[in-house]
Amino acid sequence: MKTTVILHQTHHTLADFDAIFETTVGLLKGDGLHLFPELYLTGYPLQDLVLQRPFMESYQEYLKDLNDWAKKQNGKWRALVGGIAYEFESSSGGIPTKIRNVIYEVVPGEGLKNLYTKRLLPNYDIFDEQKYFSKGSQNAFYQFNGKTFGLLICEDMWASSFHDVDPCELMLQEVAEKKMSVDAIINLSASPFDVAKKKKRHERAKTISLQFACPFFYLNRVGGEDEVIFDGNSFVMAGPKLITELKSFEQDSLSISLDDIQSEYTEKPVQRFENTWEGLFSPQLDTSRKPAAMKGWNDEECSEVLEALIFGLQEYATKSGFKKFLVALSGGMDSALVLAIVKLALKPGQSVEAIYMPSMYSSSVSTGLSEQMCKKLGIPLSYLPIKFLHSAVKNAFTQTFPESFEGLTDENVQSRLRGTLLYTRSNQTGAMVINTSNKSELAVGYSTQYGDSVGALSLLGDLYKTEVYRLGDYINQHFGNLIPEGIIHRGPSAELRENQLDQDSLPPYERLDPMLEGILSYRLGKKQLLELGYSEAEITKVLHLYLKSEYKRSQFCPILKVKAKSFGFGYRMPMSKNINYQLNT
Amino acid sequence: MKTTVILHQTHHTLADFDAIFETTVGLLKGDGLHLFPELYLTGYPLQDLVLQRPFMESYQEYLKDLNDWAKKQNGKWRALVGGIAYEFESSSGGIPTKIRNVIYEVVPGEGLKNLYTKRLLPNYDIFDEQKYFSKGSQNAFYQFNGKTFGLLICEDMWASSFHDVDPCELMLQEVAEKKMSVDAIINLSASPFDVAKKKKRHERAKTISLQFACPFFYLNRVGGEDEVIFDGNSFVMAGPKLITELKSFEQDSLSISLDDIQSEYTEKPVQRFENTWEGLFSPQLDTSRKPAAMKGWNDEECSEVLEALIFGLQEYATKSGFKKFLVALSGGMDSALVLAIVKLALKPGQSVEAIYMPSMYSSSVSTGLSEQMCKKLGIPLSYLPIKFLHSAVKNAFTQTFPESFEGLTDENVQSRLRGTLLYTRSNQTGAMVINTSNKSELAVGYSTQYGDSVGALSLLGDLYKTEVYRLGDYINQHFGNLIPEGIIHRGPSAELRENQLDQDSLPPYERLDPMLEGILSYRLGKKQLLELGYSEAEITKVLHLYLKSEYKRSQFCPILKVKAKSFGFGYRMPMSKNINYQLNT
Repeated sequence: MKTTVILHQTHHTLADFDAIFETTVGLLKGDGLHLFPELYLTGYPLQDLVLQRPFMESYQEYLKDLNDWAKKQNGKWRALVGGIAYEFESSSGGIPTKIRNVIYEVVPGEGLKNLYTKRLLPNYDIFDEQKYFSKGSQNAFYQFNGKTFGLLICEDMWASSFHDVDPCELMLQEVAEKKMSVDAIINLSASPFDVAKKKKRHERAKTISLQFACPFFYLNRVGGEDEVIFDGNSFVMAGPKLITELKSFEQDSLSISLDDIQSEYTEKPVQRFENTWEGLFSPQLDTSRKPAAMKGWNDEECSEVLEALIFGLQEYATKSGFKKFLVALSGGMDSALVLAIVKLALKPGQSVEAIYMPSMYSSSVSTGLSEQMCKKLGIPLSYLPIKFLHSAVKNAFTQTFPESFEGLTDENVQSRLRGTLLYTRSNQTGAMVINTSNKSELAVGYSTQYGDSVGALSLLGDLYKTEVYRLGDYINQHFGNLIPEGIIHRGPSAELRENQLDQDSLPPYERLDPMLEGILSYRLGKKQLLELGYSEAEITKVLHLYLKSEYKRSQFCPILKVKAKSFGFGYRMPMSKNINYQLNT
Repeated sequence: MKTTVILHQTHHTLADFDAIFETTVGLLKGDGLHLFPELYLTGYPLQDLVLQRPFMESYQEYLKDLNDWAKKQNGKWRALVGGIAYEFESSSGGIPTKIRNVIYEVVPGEGLKNLYTKRLLPNYDIFDEQKYFSKGSQNAFYQFNGKTFGLLICEDMWASSFHDVDPCELMLQEVAEKKMSVDAIINLSASPFDVAKKKKRHERAKTISLQFACPFFYLNRVGGEDEVIFDGNSFVMAGPKLITELKSFEQDSLSISLDDIQSEYTEKPVQRFENTWEGLFSPQLDTSRKPAAMKGWNDEECSEVLEALIFGLQEYATKSGFKKFLVALSGGMDSALVLAIVKLALKPGQSVEAIYMPSMYSSSVSTGLSEQMCKKLGIPLSYLPIKFLHSAVKNAFTQTFPESFEGLTDENVQSRLRGTLLYTRSNQTGAMVINTSNKSELAVGYSTQYGDSVGALSLLGDLYKTEVYRLGDYINQHFGNLIPEGIIHRGPSAELRENQLDQDSLPPYERLDPMLEGILSYRLGKKQLLELGYSEAEITKVLHLYLKSEYKRSQFCPILKVKAKSFGFGYRMPMSKNINYQLNT
């Protein structure tokens, strides 16, 4: 009898136990081995939720229900599902002594069996698994229908200098010692999206498949959890051959016969993968040029990023109950791109509104471009000039305080009045305010706290300004010029004083962005930046701006993460620190 | 010859290598064994800084300088200092393969020797040490002047269900096997303050001292690192006797002769300490009452908390370069307490200014009380009424949009206009805006995002409302009634609509606060809260408010941490999640 493997690339809200139970019961029907992602039974990442008593109790009860249900079933299927296993001691008063990230086997007529505990618990960047989970220490080879499957959970497939053991090596050793034959390796994952990740997974899978000389099943979940996006993109690799792939950013299922997978395993596996900090964050930097340049995105990468942003936005909106979106247009590129993405993201029953809030420094060009864009996209645009409020505040301050109102004071108040009006409108309509900052701005603190930095979610916070332009171009090419040419071709400006241009106070973005990527993802200092072709003056200016703006980033909204390293939850930098050595080293 | 031990309870800015070098050189003079805290050479917590190339390079260079300096010294002293040890491989291109949290011995005429690597790396709540550091695996017994010292670093002294080994047990085993005699145990620490911590440290030290039948030296650092406060409070324990104690929240040094420490070690050590999640967060809850109540602070605890808040405020201000403070007064208790604390914290050259921004709903009582308080404290008070701006925004919205402006829209806009004005004033004077929210408000989301929730730092964000009143009482008793009685005795109100009182929409704070503490620190759900004596209606209301306000907490400013569990960096809760089971379990 042939061995069928069914991959279920599922999509659920965190801790939505009822829905997950229903899905499980609905899917476990056909004969064969059904695979579900890592922590399928709960969702991921759970963070502190995993320790909340109501979570633990509901989960334990639902696990029992699932066990009872399985006992009543019959059939020739089995399922491997990712879940949590709590361990309690009688004396611990309902507090778990250990929590494990495991694979359960669901056996009709019998119930649930705990087969395997994850051995490599990622604990870098956004990952905090060692905060909550205890490590496993055993290989697991699973028997089904006369076939042998080696089991892994997500990080287990990635050998790394962070971890003490290499589960793939340990399995290979056991296979050699016991002269076993393995028919497939299965990895149940919850692996976040980034723009370079898919290729990395495929390469690593190919190596493992060649090492074990059998197919490799990679199953990933789908979901947007605040800033973290899980892209699915599950696949089956057999030696050098990608046998099949599941959808991106979408629930999907696939049934495949293990016996029918044909491939050659004679090729030599590539060298053992080493996950270092550098490898992890794989910066998008072309260091062969002087000064260094960003590796530009090709169309496929633009398409992936756009899909990820749309998916992440919809996930946050749906889970928070928003049906309306609100974007403040400035006549510049960032807000135009945000509006275009929101427009492309809209589903039936959802709407988006734009607001344009000119001050005395806003040019008539900005007004015209904002009108032009909204007209083309069929988006209602409201005018809320802030000139009058701006003057009123200025008058009040001039009458009350002796200090000058010029400069930064006068600039920031405009931005904060806009933030206030934007959220007032949001209060009226219940719309979700979409932030319009980009990664370059965030890096140099080039935004006003509680002003243009407000929002429920940041779409572009992981895109440098040059990438904002690149994605804008891509959208215009493929979706019919949503963004007016006039917006793309004018110089970036905050329009908070007369004739203000970003380039007056910053290096051009083509020079700035690779510097920032070097600082953030490569963790470079002055010495390395000099070697990459930047001037001392540029470096000092940019480093100073970057180091002085931690406080703004610390209060920023969640940023949809599309890179290995973003200014989000995984960026953990003390604010209070000496910075002098950084300006000199 | 007697053995002198010199404890240096030091205080430096993170990564201030030059200053730390100078301090080291200045202090290493007298004969004896000099002790410095955990990670003394760098500061703590470093987070991602530990991976930045300029940090690593500057540190390596400075370590070499220290080594060179030590080689040129002579004398009968030795020093044990906490520091980082990077391990590189030739092929790793300047990227460390391991980073360790270690104790270096400084030997005159020889240089630095790496003696010991920390074995228990805390990785719960605010701690992320397993992100960066590799664990040690060896006991270290250090010889000086014919005496034997057992070495520990901070967490090593705390046996725990989170960790696989117990360093104290392992040392005791080696001592027994080798029939060694140990003359003292040394623990170099970087241990954050919380209101119950000192007692816990003493108790644990007593046990260890009795187990080893020798004195226990506990050396802690001093410093405020954003939200985390290190209190010093180093001490020497000998059996059941506290021999000596160093200062709180202040640099301090103490020299003591090991030979002169007299004590009895005949008492039986208390049972082995077990650090569970519950034990860690040791909630301040009296569960014997129905409904449960907060364990109120005694005067000593109030004094500690006040000292911690003043120290934390000064640390943040000094490190960020602020000399002026700015507080928005509402006429209510929170802002009054904040202003009183800032006043008590002021050092020469620093000043504080208050702003009162009444709206049409502000009562004349609020005005009078604000005036009264500032007059008494000699603090300049400015009036910036928002009535006019409020009307102007209302008019603009009424003319532009068909939707109603009543209710939340009308309430929030007042709060946000105040936030804008407050920050405009901060821009004018360069003053640091001190947030005035409390922990009860944060827990139920009872504040306006970008409105009254703004600030550079939150002083009261880890104090429930009842604790705000308790600390206010304490200050009034001990510092001469800084807060007018009228403020203390009026009912809490946001004054954003006619006759608004907190108690209209929330349970009384005496009932609310213990519920919140149960939810946050005990991680209780509905079932446990019912058992503690709360009604189903109360629980549902409060849980709903708490669960729905994660997004506000996610953008909140740093909160000075005075409890084991606070809404700061160590609170990691997903925003997007199913909450239905929590309302029912």
